[in-house]
Amino acid sequence: MDKILRIQMGPDHPPKAVTEPIGDYAGSGGRGMTSAVVAKEVPPLCHPLGAENKLVIAPGLLSGSAAAMSGRISVGCKSPLTGGIKEANSGGQAAQVLGRLGYAAIVLEGKPAEDKLYKLVVNKDGVEILPADDLKMLGNYDAVEKLTAEYGDKICCLSIGQAGEMKLGAATVACTDMELRPSRHAGRGGVGAVMGSKGIKAIVLDDSGLSMRSPMDSDKFKEANKAFVAGLKKHPVTGQGLPAYGTNVLTNVVNEAGGYPTYNFKTGRFDKAAAISGETQAETETARGGQATHGCHRGCVIRCSGTYMDKDGHYLTKQPEYETVWAHGGNCGIDDLDSIAMLDRLDDDFGLDTIEMGATIGVAMDAGLAEFGDAAKAIELVKEVGKGTPLGRILGSGAGVTGKVFGVERVPVVKNQSMPAYDPRAVQGMGVTYATSTMGADHTAGYAVTANIMGVGGSVDALKPEGQIELSRNLQIATAAIDSTGMCLFIAFAILDQEETFQALIDMINAFHGLNFTGDDVTEMGKKILKMERDFNERAGFGPKDDRLPAYFRQEALAPHNITFQVNDADLDTMFDF
Amino acid sequence: MDKILRIQMGPDHPPKAVTEPIGDYAGSGGRGMTSAVVAKEVPPLCHPLGAENKLVIAPGLLSGSAAAMSGRISVGCKSPLTGGIKEANSGGQAAQVLGRLGYAAIVLEGKPAEDKLYKLVVNKDGVEILPADDLKMLGNYDAVEKLTAEYGDKICCLSIGQAGEMKLGAATVACTDMELRPSRHAGRGGVGAVMGSKGIKAIVLDDSGLSMRSPMDSDKFKEANKAFVAGLKKHPVTGQGLPAYGTNVLTNVVNEAGGYPTYNFKTGRFDKAAAISGETQAETETARGGQATHGCHRGCVIRCSGTYMDKDGHYLTKQPEYETVWAHGGNCGIDDLDSIAMLDRLDDDFGLDTIEMGATIGVAMDAGLAEFGDAAKAIELVKEVGKGTPLGRILGSGAGVTGKVFGVERVPVVKNQSMPAYDPRAVQGMGVTYATSTMGADHTAGYAVTANIMGVGGSVDALKPEGQIELSRNLQIATAAIDSTGMCLFIAFAILDQEETFQALIDMINAFHGLNFTGDDVTEMGKKILKMERDFNERAGFGPKDDRLPAYFRQEALAPHNITFQVNDADLDTMFDF
Repeated sequence: MDKILRIQMGPDHPPKAVTEPIGDYAGSGGRGMTSAVVAKEVPPLCHPLGAENKLVIAPGLLSGSAAAMSGRISVGCKSPLTGGIKEANSGGQAAQVLGRLGYAAIVLEGKPAEDKLYKLVVNKDGVEILPADDLKMLGNYDAVEKLTAEYGDKICCLSIGQAGEMKLGAATVACTDMELRPSRHAGRGGVGAVMGSKGIKAIVLDDSGLSMRSPMDSDKFKEANKAFVAGLKKHPVTGQGLPAYGTNVLTNVVNEAGGYPTYNFKTGRFDKAAAISGETQAETETARGGQATHGCHRGCVIRCSGTYMDKDGHYLTKQPEYETVWAHGGNCGIDDLDSIAMLDRLDDDFGLDTIEMGATIGVAMDAGLAEFGDAAKAIELVKEVGKGTPLGRILGSGAGVTGKVFGVERVPVVKNQSMPAYDPRAVQGMGVTYATSTMGADHTAGYAVTANIMGVGGSVDALKPEGQIELSRNLQIATAAIDSTGMCLFIAFAILDQEETFQALIDMINAFHGLNFTGDDVTEMGKKILKMERDFNERAGFGPKDDRLPAYFRQEALAPHNITFQVNDADLDTMFDF
Repeated sequence: MDKILRIQMGPDHPPKAVTEPIGDYAGSGGRGMTSAVVAKEVPPLCHPLGAENKLVIAPGLLSGSAAAMSGRISVGCKSPLTGGIKEANSGGQAAQVLGRLGYAAIVLEGKPAEDKLYKLVVNKDGVEILPADDLKMLGNYDAVEKLTAEYGDKICCLSIGQAGEMKLGAATVACTDMELRPSRHAGRGGVGAVMGSKGIKAIVLDDSGLSMRSPMDSDKFKEANKAFVAGLKKHPVTGQGLPAYGTNVLTNVVNEAGGYPTYNFKTGRFDKAAAISGETQAETETARGGQATHGCHRGCVIRCSGTYMDKDGHYLTKQPEYETVWAHGGNCGIDDLDSIAMLDRLDDDFGLDTIEMGATIGVAMDAGLAEFGDAAKAIELVKEVGKGTPLGRILGSGAGVTGKVFGVERVPVVKNQSMPAYDPRAVQGMGVTYATSTMGADHTAGYAVTANIMGVGGSVDALKPEGQIELSRNLQIATAAIDSTGMCLFIAFAILDQEETFQALIDMINAFHGLNFTGDDVTEMGKKILKMERDFNERAGFGPKDDRLPAYFRQEALAPHNITFQVNDADLDTMFDF
């Protein structure tokens, strides 16, 4: 992983591939890499769909190695949704394969002169940029099927669906899992639209004939990895809850805590939550011959994924995540798992962020386009996106645009990105993360649910403003670092609670790269990334007023706790004082 | 004009009218009044369509008097289009009538609890708020016809069309002219959407039984007014050009100067401009029995308006303004005056800003929704807005949203408001105004075409950056002051060039109000308003990066001068250093 692959799409020359040494970017991985390239090379005021923007795809520092859980790939750019810097990351096979191929990053640059589609094929023999107009307006599932037919089943794919081709704000980059299903997504912020603007429909990666990346100190690495895995297995969240029920184990937890945004963030508890909980979901999956426990990439030991079969026992989609089940479920008043799974499948196929789409349908329901709870109509609405109708394009542009077009006042976005599945009034630490994250409203940027609800990594009263800034800040810093390693964020539960597991992670990084990192160095790495991202956003025109929740979160009290967002603005403005 | 009428729409009480003394707002008129109320009373981070926003409708300091040209009414709010402060002003009868009714402002506040429509009837006997669901989704022409049938032909109306009811970003507030045609519009920034969000379909004003406002010193006032009118008649622009051909006299002038944005700002000259010039337009109007010279309000002596008949000699619309003819004409590659007039009529009827709509259709053409030059398709597209289809709602939301939804990179907006009919590369002073105005891209905010192209108020080379900041600054300050008097901005041509005409205006204000204003006081008034607006925008989250043209204006050279926008950012950032 000492080289960078630049795909230069034009417009003043035909598309070409240039491989160059990693140079100044050495030591950066994942989000650290994508944000460094974007911060340094992308003019902050450029148009996100223009030639000056770049799409950076980077495996983490440990990706491609034998390190457990190191399968996350980061996709970064200036976001068409937020207008700020963006890193969206995804599971699936791409990080591991790209790591083995030796690339620290693929950077898509420029813009083709003509309105044509291309695919990129990267294997041990090199790189090819080929026409791909035969994939035009195919969904991710069909596109991957065609690519598999052509390139065999040892590949993995990054691709965009119709949404990315249409350059919509909710468009994702899909990553195939171990079964070559485009079911994992770099979901947020419209990264798929930027890939679409570069004219790249798919990237085919094939590491056949290549071996795993080798650590500098193999023995120490193995030992650390073993301790790390043991730590994950030991922790109740990563060892039991997530494997058994997947992320959807949270439905009951968050609903019970009164922080489950229901009916477009109108109340904090959904009376039909039990019907769509992780427990019900796992039972349904197993009963139909699907899997309730499954890994999304080689080397996963948490295995929070699964497969969701339809009523006839045929594969419909991967096990929908908690945030997806919430977005298309409680947030829209929908309590039918099959409908939610269908919506997940459609989102994955069209290449749409499930969180953004669920929030958008919630706003559309407030606009009167459907009744809350009308699953059939919700499915119809999402299908509009695949068809590319004007209505579909509105919805695929996300909640912010949908709110504008339909004149809806209550639109749950920060920096124009939809809030995920935790109401900021009942989980105030999450509200701080939504408000201040460089990414827009994003739960993964600083997952305060840990100390607010789960009692992981300490305990901070979810309903009070006290302590939330510090909690969110520490989490945002730690997350930026984790997102650079290629590690799945879910390791955080174990490393927050178990010092020896955190140490094992550091030992693993040190043994692999021949470094002497301490915990403080990891923190410093996180801080450096956040500052870089914050600086980009400032240069793009963001200021303190962009670090605010929509006004109604301070005005409308949320049942059952009847509470508004309490953290004051002056405190929010201290987030980056570090 | 010593009282303010507040219409409190709820939601926690039925709509009610409260009249209060002018109090602290004494001495403010027009834009000075609307901006003062918005700056003081509207929370800068509120949702523009929410209960906290206010729509302020204010006649100018001289409106309702015998002062010539004092018929402009200001409509202000937090803009749903820009997110910043907004003042849009309009001709028509409303300012004169509201002045005679004695109101310094009508302030629409709150939001009704139910989704119902209301109308407001204001006459010498008082104020009534009445249900108006019978006007639901009527165009402005039909709505006014119904209101005239009910209230007689002595009224004047402020109303919204379908666009305002749908709360779209391009929605206007229409004002009737002397013939009770809703043909004059407070067009920019979506003020009609805010009126729609308050549930007010129309405001019926009737000054029957009331007399003109009397000056403090009648003799001096008469004398000053006479000198003022003489000055207007003497100046070639206000005395000859505008009366003969209307504002569309500019088509040939700006096209000749190479600053006529053509095909969505791709070139600066339209080879078919002659077909849609003011000269051709006046000839067509006269030949069909329309008027090429006409005043839009009582007391107008410039009479730049007109009436445009269809081929059968029936009234189709008022004489389309230069910016309208450009927006729907050259900007869309359309060279047919009848089609442009039809588009103007549709915009007026639906209540849409012609500039925003023309720029939007240009963007839609770049998106492939129609070919440049296809007038029939352009008409179809605008009709979609009236129908309220998803496509219509997209277009009615303006160029920014349309660009997002259709993934178009070249979108000519500043602060999300479309640029008008002067390319900022070939009229660089105009570019400075677009970039820095508190209003978003707005030619009227600081009309640098004067010194850049027309040789009025001095001469500054349109193609060079030198002197543009100072030019725009002085014009922005002067304009803010003029917009407070109720005076039509077109008096600027005469008062910039003729010191005695400027003095006559000041004498008129002094004689009317018993003041001793000097030219410096007028400048101070303008500065104070601009600072107040700028401060609101800063509190709403605007910073220096919002004072920029889209990047492509610095990258793509404009023919025929092959020039990019040259004024540097550091200089733009000095605009408010006064």
